[in-house]
Formats: sequence, C-alpha cells, structure tokens
Amino acid sequence: MSEGQGSLDLALVHYPVRNKNGEKIGSAVTNLDVHDIARACRTFGVDCFYLVTPYRDQQQIVGEILEHWRQGYGARYNGKRREALELVEICNDLAGLYWAVGEKRRNGFQVLATGAGQGCGSVSFRSIRQRLAQGEHFLLLFGTGWGLADEVMETVDARLPAIAGWDGYNHLSVRSAASIILDRLRGGRDE
Amino acid sequence: MSEGQGSLDLALVHYPVRNKNGEKIGSAVTNLDVHDIARACRTFGVDCFYLVTPYRDQQQIVGEILEHWRQGYGARYNGKRREALELVEICNDLAGLYWAVGEKRRNGFQVLATGAGQGCGSVSFRSIRQRLAQGEHFLLLFGTGWGLADEVMETVDARLPAIAGWDGYNHLSVRSAASIILDRLRGGRDE
Repeated sequence: MSEGQGSLDLALVHYPVRNKNGEKIGSAVTNLDVHDIARACRTFGVDCFYLVTPYRDQQQIVGEILEHWRQGYGARYNGKRREALELVEICNDLAGLYWAVGEKRRNGFQVLATGAGQGCGSVSFRSIRQRLAQGEHFLLLFGTGWGLADEVMETVDARLPAIAGWDGYNHLSVRSAASIILDRLRGGRDE
Repeated sequence: MSEGQGSLDLALVHYPVRNKNGEKIGSAVTNLDVHDIARACRTFGVDCFYLVTPYRDQQQIVGEILEHWRQGYGARYNGKRREALELVEICNDLAGLYWAVGEKRRNGFQVLATGAGQGCGSVSFRSIRQRLAQGEHFLLLFGTGWGLADEVMETVDARLPAIAGWDGYNHLSVRSAASIILDRLRGGRDE
C-alpha cells in the first residue's frame, strides 16, 4: 500500500441478510463468491476480505477451501490464487467484524453499505474514491441473498449507490457488483 | 436501446482457448459464467450473449439450464433471471458467431478481444465508450481457461486493455472482468 493512501477492507455478509420476501435469514457460503471476490480484492488493493457467517459447518468448509489454496496442492498449482485467498478471514458476526477492523484502524474507519435497492445512495463512488486517495479508511459491506438486513443498515455510516444499469434493471450477482464497485473505487482511470 | 446508440454483443469462447501452459484446449461451460455474465449483459444493455462451444453435450446442458430459467420453474420463481437468460444464444464456433452477428449488423461491426495478457491494448475503454455512443457496433470476445487462443486473436479488429489493478496482479475471473468491462463501456458515470 502506498504511503498516504487510505485503506479498503471488504466484508461479505451471510447473516443477517434478506430472502426474496424480505425476511431475515442466514445464507450458505458460495465457493465462487470466495474465489471471485478474493481475486478482485487482490487486484484492487483491498487489505482484507472478511467472510461473515455464524455457522460452524460453513466456517469449516471455508477453512478447508482456504487451506487447499494457501498451503495444499492449490498453492503450488496456482500461486496467484494463493495470493488472493490469503486475504480472506472468517468472522462470526458483525460485532466481530467491526472489532477486527477496529484493531487494525486505530484512527477509525467508515462503514459503507452496498446493495441493489439503495437507489442513489448517501455518498457517491467519486467522493469515496477521492477520500481513499486522501488517506481515509473504509470497510465495504456486501450482502448475500437478497441483500443486507435492515439491522445491518442501521450500523453503517453511509450507503453507496446501486450500480446504474441501462434501463433500471438491477439484478447483478454479488460477485459482479463487488468487482464493479472495487473498479470504480480503485481501478485505473485512463483506460 | 435508444435511437442513435450503437450496439454491444458479447461472446464467451470455450474453444479455442489456452490452458495454463499456453496450449490450445476446449473448456467446459461453467454454470455461474452463464448466470453472472447474462445478468451483467442485461444490466448494461448488451443485445446478445453468445456461448461458443462445439461440444454437443455442453450445448445440451446449457440448453437445459436455459429452459429451466426461461420457461420452467425458474422463470416463475425469478423473472429477473429469466430476462437475463433470454439474452443467451449458443454457437458452435467462431465462424458461426461471426455469421450470427453479421446477420443482425448489416452495416458491419467491430470485434474486440479482451484478456489479462493484453497489456495496454490497441484501443482504450474510453474510445470504445464514445464510439458506442456515436452509433458503432461492437462484439466483445472473452476467453475461458487461460484466455483466447492466438488463432482467435488473429480474427479480431482490436484489443481492449487488461484491467489495470493495484500493482500488476492480473488474475480476475472472467465473470469479474466481463462485469467491469461492461461497466466501463456502458455504466452510469457520475456516481
């Protein structure tokens, strides 16, 4: 990380999130979420990619996947994948997440929610990009299922806008949304 | 599609592509590639998402997935997914792809390759964005595996740059790369 640069952490929340009917649920960890988002995090200089799930069996499965790619055969087969998956940490819940990030960011950090239902958001991608470049610290929250539960939204400092598509269609995968948002916040601009 | 706007088609190539050692291979279709890229295509106004594979068994599996989401239970369960998967068409090979796109674009179209090994590319994202807005027609090619084979590169009009990351790390999934590239070419800009 360059000196003077701010920092970016990312968390993928599996509980509490919403189902299709807006009810609070916990979702299962999806293997390709871990891989795709870890690779995007590594590409765009995210410090740590937190998987938030309270379920011990899910934590164990993720632990086995991570072990394979960090120390096992996967690490020798594909060193770039190893580099990406080294960014992943598992948290039980939001309280544990905020504690873990706070331990690293002693001068404070801002929590930004993302989501397809956010409309115009309370901050712009451009402003966060600038504030990152000026040295501020941010934690991005992504929800699985049908998005972050209301009780998560009550804990955040601001909301990023939904990804603006062509005609209002708004149904990207969380893998796509995370990739696009990291590119908007950190990608090379003169393309 | 607004009048005066150009058009964008996208193809995901499974043959001929490269393996880790640079050898020419055919890859298997990945279910989440179909879903994620179709959803990104629908979001960013891509007209048609072509899956290029010569393997009949792969074509049949994709056909069953598409049938489930277009006419089967999936269509009733999730209409937004149906809208996305309605953009998908299957082609046997590059010749069939170019023929199908040519049938729609009687005034011609340009073929743009994408890839992690492209370096700075031969055109910029910004220039293609402008040319799209001015009414030109483009077909984007994405390779699975370790990217498009050399014989594919010989058929294209230009190469888009690799996605510029933080420090040269260059190992995004094709799902992430396609999402980011569509956002760069068609996404809302004042964010």
